[in-house]
Amino acid sequence: MESVFTVRPDVLSGDTADVYFLRTKAVLEKENINPVVTMEIFPGRPGLLCGVKEVLALLQLVLPDTAKVWAMDEGEPIAAKQVAVRITAPYQSFGVYETAMLGTLAHCTGWATAARACVEAAQGIPVVSFGARHVHPNIAPTMDYAAMIGGCVTGSTTAGARLLGRKPSGTMPHALVLVMGDTVQAALAFDRDMPDDVTRIVLVDTFKDEAEESLRVAHALGKRLGGVRLDTPMERGRVTPDLVKEVRARLDMEGFSHVKVFISGGLSPDRIKLLLDAGAPVASFGVGSYISGASPIDFTGDLKEIDGKPIAKRGRIPGITANPRLKRVEFSATAK
Amino acid sequence: MESVFTVRPDVLSGDTADVYFLRTKAVLEKENINPVVTMEIFPGRPGLLCGVKEVLALLQLVLPDTAKVWAMDEGEPIAAKQVAVRITAPYQSFGVYETAMLGTLAHCTGWATAARACVEAAQGIPVVSFGARHVHPNIAPTMDYAAMIGGCVTGSTTAGARLLGRKPSGTMPHALVLVMGDTVQAALAFDRDMPDDVTRIVLVDTFKDEAEESLRVAHALGKRLGGVRLDTPMERGRVTPDLVKEVRARLDMEGFSHVKVFISGGLSPDRIKLLLDAGAPVASFGVGSYISGASPIDFTGDLKEIDGKPIAKRGRIPGITANPRLKRVEFSATAK
Amino acid sequence: MESVFTVRPDVLSGDTADVYFLRTKAVLEKENINPVVTMEIFPGRPGLLCGVKEVLALLQLVLPDTAKVWAMDEGEPIAAKQVAVRITAPYQSFGVYETAMLGTLAHCTGWATAARACVEAAQGIPVVSFGARHVHPNIAPTMDYAAMIGGCVTGSTTAGARLLGRKPSGTMPHALVLVMGDTVQAALAFDRDMPDDVTRIVLVDTFKDEAEESLRVAHALGKRLGGVRLDTPMERGRVTPDLVKEVRARLDMEGFSHVKVFISGGLSPDRIKLLLDAGAPVASFGVGSYISGASPIDFTGDLKEIDGKPIAKRGRIPGITANPRLKRVEFSATAK
Amino acid sequence: MESVFTVRPDVLSGDTADVYFLRTKAVLEKENINPVVTMEIFPGRPGLLCGVKEVLALLQLVLPDTAKVWAMDEGEPIAAKQVAVRITAPYQSFGVYETAMLGTLAHCTGWATAARACVEAAQGIPVVSFGARHVHPNIAPTMDYAAMIGGCVTGSTTAGARLLGRKPSGTMPHALVLVMGDTVQAALAFDRDMPDDVTRIVLVDTFKDEAEESLRVAHALGKRLGGVRLDTPMERGRVTPDLVKEVRARLDMEGFSHVKVFISGGLSPDRIKLLLDAGAPVASFGVGSYISGASPIDFTGDLKEIDGKPIAKRGRIPGITANPRLKRVEFSATAK
Amino acid sequence: MESVFTVRPDVLSGDTADVYFLRTKAVLEKENINPVVTMEIFPGRPGLLCGVKEVLALLQLVLPDTAKVWAMDEGEPIAAKQVAVRITAPYQSFGVYETAMLGTLAHCTGWATAARACVEAAQGIPVVSFGARHVHPNIAPTMDYAAMIGGCVTGSTTAGARLLGRKPSGTMPHALVLVMGDTVQAALAFDRDMPDDVTRIVLVDTFKDEAEESLRVAHALGKRLGGVRLDTPMERGRVTPDLVKEVRARLDMEGFSHVKVFISGGLSPDRIKLLLDAGAPVASFGVGSYISGASPIDFTGDLKEIDGKPIAKRGRIPGITANPRLKRVEFSATAK
Amino acid sequence: MESVFTVRPDVLSGDTADVYFLRTKAVLEKENINPVVTMEIFPGRPGLLCGVKEVLALLQLVLPDTAKVWAMDEGEPIAAKQVAVRITAPYQSFGVYETAMLGTLAHCTGWATAARACVEAAQGIPVVSFGARHVHPNIAPTMDYAAMIGGCVTGSTTAGARLLGRKPSGTMPHALVLVMGDTVQAALAFDRDMPDDVTRIVLVDTFKDEAEESLRVAHALGKRLGGVRLDTPMERGRVTPDLVKEVRARLDMEGFSHVKVFISGGLSPDRIKLLLDAGAPVASFGVGSYISGASPIDFTGDLKEIDGKPIAKRGRIPGITANPRLKRVEFSATAK
Repeated sequence: MESVFTVRPDVLSGDTADVYFLRTKAVLEKENINPVVTMEIFPGRPGLLCGVKEVLALLQLVLPDTAKVWAMDEGEPIAAKQVAVRITAPYQSFGVYETAMLGTLAHCTGWATAARACVEAAQGIPVVSFGARHVHPNIAPTMDYAAMIGGCVTGSTTAGARLLGRKPSGTMPHALVLVMGDTVQAALAFDRDMPDDVTRIVLVDTFKDEAEESLRVAHALGKRLGGVRLDTPMERGRVTPDLVKEVRARLDMEGFSHVKVFISGGLSPDRIKLLLDAGAPVASFGVGSYISGASPIDFTGDLKEIDGKPIAKRGRIPGITANPRLKRVEFSATAK
Repeated sequence: MESVFTVRPDVLSGDTADVYFLRTKAVLEKENINPVVTMEIFPGRPGLLCGVKEVLALLQLVLPDTAKVWAMDEGEPIAAKQVAVRITAPYQSFGVYETAMLGTLAHCTGWATAARACVEAAQGIPVVSFGARHVHPNIAPTMDYAAMIGGCVTGSTTAGARLLGRKPSGTMPHALVLVMGDTVQAALAFDRDMPDDVTRIVLVDTFKDEAEESLRVAHALGKRLGGVRLDTPMERGRVTPDLVKEVRARLDMEGFSHVKVFISGGLSPDRIKLLLDAGAPVASFGVGSYISGASPIDFTGDLKEIDGKPIAKRGRIPGITANPRLKRVEFSATAK
Repeated sequence: MESVFTVRPDVLSGDTADVYFLRTKAVLEKENINPVVTMEIFPGRPGLLCGVKEVLALLQLVLPDTAKVWAMDEGEPIAAKQVAVRITAPYQSFGVYETAMLGTLAHCTGWATAARACVEAAQGIPVVSFGARHVHPNIAPTMDYAAMIGGCVTGSTTAGARLLGRKPSGTMPHALVLVMGDTVQAALAFDRDMPDDVTRIVLVDTFKDEAEESLRVAHALGKRLGGVRLDTPMERGRVTPDLVKEVRARLDMEGFSHVKVFISGGLSPDRIKLLLDAGAPVASFGVGSYISGASPIDFTGDLKEIDGKPIAKRGRIPGITANPRLKRVEFSATAK
Repeated sequence: MESVFTVRPDVLSGDTADVYFLRTKAVLEKENINPVVTMEIFPGRPGLLCGVKEVLALLQLVLPDTAKVWAMDEGEPIAAKQVAVRITAPYQSFGVYETAMLGTLAHCTGWATAARACVEAAQGIPVVSFGARHVHPNIAPTMDYAAMIGGCVTGSTTAGARLLGRKPSGTMPHALVLVMGDTVQAALAFDRDMPDDVTRIVLVDTFKDEAEESLRVAHALGKRLGGVRLDTPMERGRVTPDLVKEVRARLDMEGFSHVKVFISGGLSPDRIKLLLDAGAPVASFGVGSYISGASPIDFTGDLKEIDGKPIAKRGRIPGITANPRLKRVEFSATAK
Repeated sequence: MESVFTVRPDVLSGDTADVYFLRTKAVLEKENINPVVTMEIFPGRPGLLCGVKEVLALLQLVLPDTAKVWAMDEGEPIAAKQVAVRITAPYQSFGVYETAMLGTLAHCTGWATAARACVEAAQGIPVVSFGARHVHPNIAPTMDYAAMIGGCVTGSTTAGARLLGRKPSGTMPHALVLVMGDTVQAALAFDRDMPDDVTRIVLVDTFKDEAEESLRVAHALGKRLGGVRLDTPMERGRVTPDLVKEVRARLDMEGFSHVKVFISGGLSPDRIKLLLDAGAPVASFGVGSYISGASPIDFTGDLKEIDGKPIAKRGRIPGITANPRLKRVEFSATAK
Repeated sequence: MESVFTVRPDVLSGDTADVYFLRTKAVLEKENINPVVTMEIFPGRPGLLCGVKEVLALLQLVLPDTAKVWAMDEGEPIAAKQVAVRITAPYQSFGVYETAMLGTLAHCTGWATAARACVEAAQGIPVVSFGARHVHPNIAPTMDYAAMIGGCVTGSTTAGARLLGRKPSGTMPHALVLVMGDTVQAALAFDRDMPDDVTRIVLVDTFKDEAEESLRVAHALGKRLGGVRLDTPMERGRVTPDLVKEVRARLDMEGFSHVKVFISGGLSPDRIKLLLDAGAPVASFGVGSYISGASPIDFTGDLKEIDGKPIAKRGRIPGITANPRLKRVEFSATAK
């Protein structure tokens, strides 16, 4: 099994781990104790499981051949307390990675779950992950990956889209229009300079009313115009269902039925539902902070067997927890 | 100005940027347009500003000498729409980093703000960032850094604590106790094997009632015991004010007044306040997901001048926004 | 005492009265019973009293010279159950007008009270009654009168403003702009054709973005432009504080500080407060349905003395109710 | 088509119009502009349409023969934004009446909608409009008309009932009972003096407990008594379901099953439902301020075509809006 | 009909009656008035009727042979205002006992109704009344009786259980464990000293964690152990579903499937439902203050006939109220 | 110390105790274990302490001379967990009475606390306990006692009032008026037959409107009438502030200022406050189920020392709890 995920050196070294796992390892080494244990990892809330593949990429690097691992599939719905990953291996070989494994699953599952909620609200209309600007760049591609696992068609970052072999999505920023000084001029330059496989979608809320600007751009680019993007800010009342309907109607009236309407700005499942319930003819939703700012869904790792004997801390039930959706993972020999 | 922050290559290459900034750069290059612009970056909600230093580390690498940058200080309170960073430079030199700058500020300010709320609730009692397990490991040290900017005394990751020259904090995990098979045995081994500068704080909720276990451990380690940690799970009703008071009272009764009580597990400003209002004698709080799972505080970057002329998109007021707390940033020549 | 109020013939004939008062009059005439009674009229809720003058205009026409009437002043605050009007006269002379008197007071006091709430929220900034379009035209001038009693500087109807000797207020409707085909053309025609004493206030949300249109109009009319009116519809997010601030800022930047910003559309005390609290630089508020659609404040008329003897129905206290703010009304002989 | 509605001279003169329509007319006359336009009038909320007939009576007086008008039927349910009236005519011929048309529809539709809610709650038991005392007498008959369009069997004003050819409804006021000094005396006088076609319904809450008084009156009038009316004030706990049941039971026990129980006082759809759900044997409901104090349902008039070309202000969709329930209106030649 | 209920002398003497009934009796005796009246007794809220038998035991002692009594059955569901008891007898013979009869029914019906709610929530799992400690001892057996009428299998008081011929239920108090100094020692002594027909149920939360203590006790008593009782206090997070599951699992794992888990402490229908919905394997619930602290369900006694003539105070309907569930009561001659 | 409280034989025998205390006693006797223990009794919620005297009356009967007892005063405010009673004695001498002691305190403190809330709301106007009819007669005098401890001037039961040496309070029941057939006849008979020291307060809502009946009674009894009682049922809207004011006003108008207005029926602190805030001139409040139906305030008895050594179960702090308001109790030798 090869992975697109690269484990960074400071993760592998334990530098990003809770320090008490490093201390535990030191104690056990000095005491010469290294039992074969079974750890089960499960979430505290239900969600859409994500991060399994990256966790497995890490385990593949560190576990001995005798280890056994079971996992649910990336992208499956998971219930609260359902076991996502089960590891049977000598404790010292992987105990220090508990922090990394839990964090990967928590963060990714949080994003994927939020993305899924948007995708379900959109009822088949494509949703794109536009939230890179709300998370630290070290993690933005991972966030886009999780959003795609949740059902987004793609993300806005090159590195993120690449993780699933997709092309990133983007139209044009306000900065281009402002620097060019006019939306039509920006649109013409974009059309002139971009390769043909980039769809011409023009942002139409920078200088003028969206409906007026949409028609100006449509007249300038004609058949080459793929769509317009509405991103009206709060200060102008953000994108309302009636605005979408009116832009659609005015485009249609002047013969531009081929021009699609894309929207972005403050979208959430509720907002998407409100727009669709009101009949707004949207071609695609760009969702930002609802997905990228989603809270992690916390995971816990519990030791449930030590040297084959059921055990658990107070509050947990000793021994293996049944989960028919767990599958045994086979690591390829070459991957290490 | 040197920085502890390393800009990763995929950030510098634009691979983590929203793709439309890359496209904008390509268009402007072909059109041979590169005006000096002024961009202002500001948050949508109030908070405790964090991430400025990392943003400046990035700008230092990419801006020409003619550029001018102003910024507020790391760790200052910031109001909604208050300008955190202002950049005057040729647009092509930094436009593509808008995603990275906004994301860094959004994520870090979100964490620092949440940490500050806990620190304020704790009224002088130390708070430690224990949330690494809830975020992706690529970002865990940054999260610990932001938590410390927010007032935490340290974090649980080595890499995070190092960013501010501190020592990470940790006691012992349930795993150590489970593998050792008994809390007292785990405590004795820990004491035997750890260097002297690691405080002996023993987790006392793994096998037995916390009060009973605290006394067993205190009798075993005597004066060498620094503290006990209560981390009672939800299944056992988590840590209540009365539990802390009782453990404290029973320790005192048997002559262990020097043993401090540390608590963790589901802490938040409200929970901390409830504990302190009820008079729980806590020595230190370990806060996890309240800080590390905090939502980012979104930032926006607006072009406000182009070639010295005030400009703005619809919904924003053209021209520079006054902010007396902005300071001019001097980049060291050697740092590049 | 002369009155601007004309009592319509169907009111005087009892045609608009509850029919049981006509039947009561018929019974008492046949029974030859006509005691001198004292009726007190009071509201069920507190408010700003309005309609007294019109009620007195009616009483002057019908009461015999022996009658005595006391009333509070038009435009005074009135408490729940405080007596607004007290009449001592033979019952047959005025009993049939109970419906008309109560209705006049209820409707007018409802409007005046709502207007007062807007005026108080506006903290000295003028409020104009723009609600004629939400009430039946037979009553629109009365509504404007009540709004002015409540503190509006004027109303939008000629007949209403005339009741207090004022000039009606209005800018231009969307219809003029639509028929002229362009806001600037409409503004120029308006300026060409209107007498000098009509302030040039131009509606700027018909075709283009408000900020853009404001500047176009300001450049076209220059010093002759008195103001712009923002009436942004719900479909475009209605008038926000930021829109007002931005229009103000853009006008100032281009040297049009003399051009004032008027706003209308869905205003209420809460909305006015929100705008002012956010610092929106508004010159005048045009309030429609909040005032004209206000619910009447119900009034009740109770007989409290008959032939000098205290009396009351169950639930009321017999005899005269003290109210030092009541003043004796002197009817002029000639007015009948 | 003849109409029972009289257009008052100040409506026809434009004196009750928003003054900016008069100014618009003046400008367009000077500019010699008078295009054929299409205006559509629609409500902002759903309701029961009322006022159409009065609007058509006005249009018939002012429109040229070339004009075309479509309208929904009086008394039809109407959706938000559904077109109630569409007018195609030279703008100058009717533009100034926009205020009057919108106000008539808004006020009447508000009343009719509230009346319908009461009628539906009453489940077939007759509802009478008793609210004249809460509105200005100039408008009371129109209010009663709208209440009847909404389903009330009649109203309390002679002029209102006459608009639909009905007889007004009323029992006796407290004033008659107070002036007569005793409910039984009032009932006997009423019976003596009223024509036979007026039902003997006696108000029984003036001096004594309602149950006691009902029996006194029933014994006095015997078979000639049609009913009793309960109008208990708030000070005595208003009319409760148990009061109605008890009065009914006590009347039945003493052989007065033919005497019906009418109730009034603070009724609303919720209150009616509560009474009927509790099994109160009510013969008829008299509803006052819930209907007459209902807020108008605002209407808007939009120009959608000018000289045959679709047009609209920002926020609206240009061109005719489909509505299959609109019917072409034929004005009779003689009616003008 | 014989009764287990003893009427205390101060009840029979009227000393516990509202004094105005004693005064009424004195007045009527002096006035020599003693009509045969019919009184109906009914509750203000629905519930589970209890107290009828004790009321009948009182009536049997005081009513003359000519009296007639009807009553619903003890333990039947009763609706608001449904007649529970109807008495036809000379007023002086029983009027003074109105206070006692209403109080008995109110208090007992309140307890029985609360007990029934717990029993229904428990879905067939036995519920025991453990609330004696929350009520005055003079009334504790009556409370246990009412709880059993409501469906509890028994109560904790000897006197209460005896009223229905049952054996009281109890395990062991914390006091026994504390005095013995160790749970296992207390369990062994209990086992040694108690007759065989007392089930060995051991309280396991006094000194140690419940799961740990359960296993200790199970190992000590083996097959003789009937069950463990969890009564975890609020200070330790009270009994959670997960605690029950864990204790069950740990007992099963070590071969003690025959040991049942009993729980108590703060139970209510909601709490019982929460535990069962979460799958907690509970063998029996001990409910205290939810039952014994339940508010009485107030009853009213109305005179509805006097000497055969329907009568009632204002607010009530005169005459007998139909209730097919009333049964005629036959008093045995000997019982007096 | 002598006591008015009689300990019933079944309390003394342990028949009303939780059976497990009897079993504990049996075990300890067989094991020959009888340490001197210290028990502390405290409430779970704050309140007004009541029941102490009755508890002490019980302890006096059972404790050996070597025992020591401390207690707070009857009628003192008590905080949650504040120790009300502390007993140091051989366990076997009093352990079985834990149920009775806790129940007495819980029930009485619940009633006294509710009474105090009414008394505070009444702001000096007397409150009488009228709730005997809502509790079992075995407990009604105790309830009245607790209500008086809470501040009520007296109660309605002879036995209850006697416990504090007071006279019970009562006016006349509806039954007397119904049996006499007329309120005035009932009033005259009451006046004729009652001793002079019973105030003539007449219930005036049985047959006629309260205001009418008050005047009839006042005219009949003149100066001998002390007051009227309003007890209007829910079916007639219960006692409203306006009803009290009107009755007061009508009495004053006809010269009966000496006649006081007493009210009862559904009173609670909120309702009392509402009446007084609205200015209702009430002379006295009769409160029923708010006091007598109050939930007990649960008490707990904890063993805190055994043979002088601090001890406690899990969740409690071992050893004596400080409370400066505890006073040492001296039992008189003769009282046993």
